Amino acid sequence: MPAHPLQPLAHAIRFLSIDAIVKATEGHQGVPLGMAEIATALYVNYLKYNPADPTWWDRDRVVLSNGHGSMLLYSLLHLSGYDAVPLTEIQRFRELGAVCEGHPEYNPAAGIEVTTGPLGQGIANALGMAVAEAYLNARFGTGLVDHFTYAFVGDGCLQEGVGQEMISLAGHLQLGKLMLLWDDNLITDDGPTSLSISENVAERFRVANWHVQELDGHDLEAVSAALAQAKADPRPSLLACRTVIGKGIPRVQGQRGGHSARLFEQDAQEARALLNWPHSPFEVPADILTAWREAGRRSLPEYQAWQERLATLPAAERAEFERVMRGELPAGWQDVLLDYKRRAHEAPTVPSGIFLSGEINDLLAPVLPERIVGCADLEAPTSHKRSLQAFTATDRAGAYVHCGVREHVMGSMANGMAAHGGVIPLSVTYLAFADYERPAMRMAALMGLPVKFVFSHDSIGIGKNGPTHQPVEILASLRAMPNMWVMRPADAVEAAECWALALAHRAGPVSLVFARQSLPLVRSEHTPDNRCARGGYVLHEASAGPRQVTLLATGSEVALAVQARDLLESEGVGTAVVSMPCWELFDEQPGDYRQLVLGDGVRVAVEAAGRFGWDAYLGARGGFVGMKGFGASGPADALYKLFGITAEAVATEARRLLQA
Amino acid sequence: MPAHPLQPLAHAIRFLSIDAIVKATEGHQGVPLGMAEIATALYVNYLKYNPADPTWWDRDRVVLSNGHGSMLLYSLLHLSGYDAVPLTEIQRFRELGAVCEGHPEYNPAAGIEVTTGPLGQGIANALGMAVAEAYLNARFGTGLVDHFTYAFVGDGCLQEGVGQEMISLAGHLQLGKLMLLWDDNLITDDGPTSLSISENVAERFRVANWHVQELDGHDLEAVSAALAQAKADPRPSLLACRTVIGKGIPRVQGQRGGHSARLFEQDAQEARALLNWPHSPFEVPADILTAWREAGRRSLPEYQAWQERLATLPAAERAEFERVMRGELPAGWQDVLLDYKRRAHEAPTVPSGIFLSGEINDLLAPVLPERIVGCADLEAPTSHKRSLQAFTATDRAGAYVHCGVREHVMGSMANGMAAHGGVIPLSVTYLAFADYERPAMRMAALMGLPVKFVFSHDSIGIGKNGPTHQPVEILASLRAMPNMWVMRPADAVEAAECWALALAHRAGPVSLVFARQSLPLVRSEHTPDNRCARGGYVLHEASAGPRQVTLLATGSEVALAVQARDLLESEGVGTAVVSMPCWELFDEQPGDYRQLVLGDGVRVAVEAAGRFGWDAYLGARGGFVGMKGFGASGPADALYKLFGITAEAVATEARRLLQA
Repeated sequence: MPAHPLQPLAHAIRFLSIDAIVKATEGHQGVPLGMAEIATALYVNYLKYNPADPTWWDRDRVVLSNGHGSMLLYSLLHLSGYDAVPLTEIQRFRELGAVCEGHPEYNPAAGIEVTTGPLGQGIANALGMAVAEAYLNARFGTGLVDHFTYAFVGDGCLQEGVGQEMISLAGHLQLGKLMLLWDDNLITDDGPTSLSISENVAERFRVANWHVQELDGHDLEAVSAALAQAKADPRPSLLACRTVIGKGIPRVQGQRGGHSARLFEQDAQEARALLNWPHSPFEVPADILTAWREAGRRSLPEYQAWQERLATLPAAERAEFERVMRGELPAGWQDVLLDYKRRAHEAPTVPSGIFLSGEINDLLAPVLPERIVGCADLEAPTSHKRSLQAFTATDRAGAYVHCGVREHVMGSMANGMAAHGGVIPLSVTYLAFADYERPAMRMAALMGLPVKFVFSHDSIGIGKNGPTHQPVEILASLRAMPNMWVMRPADAVEAAECWALALAHRAGPVSLVFARQSLPLVRSEHTPDNRCARGGYVLHEASAGPRQVTLLATGSEVALAVQARDLLESEGVGTAVVSMPCWELFDEQPGDYRQLVLGDGVRVAVEAAGRFGWDAYLGARGGFVGMKGFGASGPADALYKLFGITAEAVATEARRLLQA
Repeated sequence: MPAHPLQPLAHAIRFLSIDAIVKATEGHQGVPLGMAEIATALYVNYLKYNPADPTWWDRDRVVLSNGHGSMLLYSLLHLSGYDAVPLTEIQRFRELGAVCEGHPEYNPAAGIEVTTGPLGQGIANALGMAVAEAYLNARFGTGLVDHFTYAFVGDGCLQEGVGQEMISLAGHLQLGKLMLLWDDNLITDDGPTSLSISENVAERFRVANWHVQELDGHDLEAVSAALAQAKADPRPSLLACRTVIGKGIPRVQGQRGGHSARLFEQDAQEARALLNWPHSPFEVPADILTAWREAGRRSLPEYQAWQERLATLPAAERAEFERVMRGELPAGWQDVLLDYKRRAHEAPTVPSGIFLSGEINDLLAPVLPERIVGCADLEAPTSHKRSLQAFTATDRAGAYVHCGVREHVMGSMANGMAAHGGVIPLSVTYLAFADYERPAMRMAALMGLPVKFVFSHDSIGIGKNGPTHQPVEILASLRAMPNMWVMRPADAVEAAECWALALAHRAGPVSLVFARQSLPLVRSEHTPDNRCARGGYVLHEASAGPRQVTLLATGSEVALAVQARDLLESEGVGTAVVSMPCWELFDEQPGDYRQLVLGDGVRVAVEAAGRFGWDAYLGARGGFVGMKGFGASGPADALYKLFGITAEAVATEARRLLQA
């Protein structure tokens, strides 16, 4: 049987990958060698892309969920003509500063749609991209947003729980333009998959109402035919491609070592002999490169037609589309928040902390319809649905995704939405369940994606549900994460200010953390400026005399600090209260501002959480009132007393330090 | 049709639950009202238990995975006769200090096998219990360990990713004595399950090779028959019980409000009318209580026969069984570690940090065969299998579980093993993937379970795999967790000392964190005492003069601190190096010891991680050398230089502070 005409294109991937991995002395050959034909069929025959404009808004998205196989992606990007991935960068695979990093790192300009590596994240990101596409398609029409989302995926992603969450939710939402290309090679790092899994994985997709095809992943015709069928089918599609791991390297192919055993020059030579590839290391013969570059230009007519459609749109429509896709906020968006802030001073009742956020989110709906809220089966207690319609299998215009009890995929799909662009994803659950979502939050922080992670029920203030539901260490664990803003507003005014800061922040994710309990106003009067913008500020200066004590607090404990101040000031001890809703912003302030806020005297921090991290602000004469361990089951008021988080305890600690 | 004779027993659960929830003004009625018949059939006809000896080692284990339905469990415990749950405690449901907390909190003496609440944890714990049972059964024989593990489970647990990980692994391991009783009520907190899930959940179990029966969960005969079949079937079993949420309360049954809408006195009255239950609140008629108490004594013959078998065992065999079940360590176990420590000074090569731990684990195998190691598809790089045999569907004597790429269930099943007793669970993966396991780690800390979480690849020292695989914030996030020891040994000696401390620690979990890179010895000579026991200690005192500088470090950075000390001492600056492998232990030391160790002068901490948390030890003249953000892809040495984590940088920071 004569070789398929695309076979040399697939081999070009194989040998670029082998040569790069040999040169780097490490890497994962399993994926690029096993998926070379699958990737070639996709990129040459079907993918809508334009290497000359990598961030074209209507491109098909491609995610390498099995990110350890990064040389597959780099080979594809180089061969199809992405300027950011020249041969010299392939040759620097895994070197410091190379575009071709060990795992793909988010770099849309280079064609790298998301960072992948921790397994399961990529396919969950792809789900988010497909949701964003469907939503934008419904909003702007197929002329502007109408693309597929493909994800390469390995066994590991499908063993991870988040993988099943993704399978289940994608099937439920019937995202027909989502396709998984599974490298079904029967091998993981430990050896045969039979060491740890027995089920028919493809069947799991069928149960979840996916379109499933099982095929030979090295048969270019079969892959092409399956891709065509998958595109035509209205269900999300799985191509279960049986492959040989490390295919082409005699010593390791089909073996455990095919995954990532170190490759040597001799392996490369033996592969060249086996596959009849007489070319030098890193040499891609001109005819093959030409064929690849032509493939990279295959979508140009579609690209040009799209540009023309965009150019001929009515000006206002075009401006709105471009604004949304650029992630810009519309004129006047702050007015909603400013107005809310002003009206907070007239509010007759004191709502629960999380309900403040729900109100704000709802007020923003008409102004910022591109917010998409995901929530993990806590609609009523987290209060962020209100007027929003659900995004469903039959209604793509809805902007509220009932994620089910699946926090992990909720966070990861939010990342995918943010990476896609055109939507502002919010992910909502209890703070106690942030740990379930944390692997996604870490990836958002690493990529610098503008995801809003909204949390309610942020402390022992939740009361009787007990310690499982009472965060004590979670604020600290989030504050420890680089590039993650953690905001814990004290009242309705701070809620509005923090929301404004969070929306304007595009360089990374924000955790907006709200109490379950009522948050009485701590701001005495309206000011148009955003005082939370500096992260921490003097809410009340000492008035009984020169400042001797500074009380530091966040969220629900700011009111308590104010009460403690009253006690101390009544004794003539000049006491200031500092509200610190966002440590990350405070840390960015000039040293003299920080010093002015923190003061020279005694400092006592109060927070219904652990002390961990607070010492950075406490100085030599500092104390802390908060939690020493996990919480307990009982009414919130009783718990605050039980754990000694009271105004009197704060005042006592301040007095003790003054006398020390 | 006349009512089933057990129906009044089920109604007794229902009304105790309703009355307690009405009195508490909050709670979750959905589970106890929906599962009353299921639970009754189990406890009256099948469960092997003895309320008079709640911690009987061979009892069947029962986990309420849908822990919000805690009144189901409390009702069962009270009715069947557990002394710790008298009616007065039922009446204090959700009050501060009550045994009947909002969610079940680990309390074996009261019959509460594990803390549950965060969904999915309970069924994964149950998997661990079933593994422990099978292992102990193989080791000690069916005469001593031969019981079933049952878990009540709701829709949420089966939506969570960890739920699927559990389904998959339990099916793979064919744990035939594991049974899930699913409250298939088609309702979650948001409303109908159809809002967020479309698949046939039972089919997912069939795909994973479970024995599945679908039945009416209110039909006592059907449930009993299904339990009998499930017990007889060699596969793990799912009873998919179709139920009516909140059954018995006209206003909410079968509705969204059936889950946890507030119940009022009138609801209780209407339920009494509907179900013909004329008794007062909290009244259990004597005949029904008698029937329940008889049910609680049903296993007494089995219990007595078991006690006799134990009593007639050969003394040595009995002593060993009792030692293992009590979680006691055998005589001489420290010798292995002491010997390893001594020999470390003669080792010709410097092994990778994690390989030190692998070596120790392997040496312990003959002495402590009850260690069960789970690992998430990283056998080779984490090095903890070695001479261990795999625990498989056909070999229950193995003590190494290939968990697949499923970190979350790995951690949760380790918790279940520890709660079961008789085994010492280890859970092994890369530190970067700790976030996937974190919800389980939090539960281990909350319950105070002696689980050893072992992590390798703990910093940028992993090199070219890049920032996804490089922890920078994870040490801090674990240190922030109450009741979790985090140990980061600096060399082979500290590895042995930390292992010894971890094994002896029974009051909570330990995270043992190891570098990928080589750890040269920092201890210059053998000492028999365990210097890590104080958490932090002076490794090298200042010798060039009085101590002016204290360098604090952990793990792989201790060697670097020693180099920095050399630089400073060569300039005449008296410099001490403090190794701080375990902050939690250090924090427990007396103040004067801590002060002595930390010194009065300049302090500089160095760790290849973020600063977060270190300020608690840095004092007024403190500095830090470490990571400011996420890592990068490149060789480890280059990364240490790139991020400025070098001996020279530490010395420079110390000099700067001396001059400040």
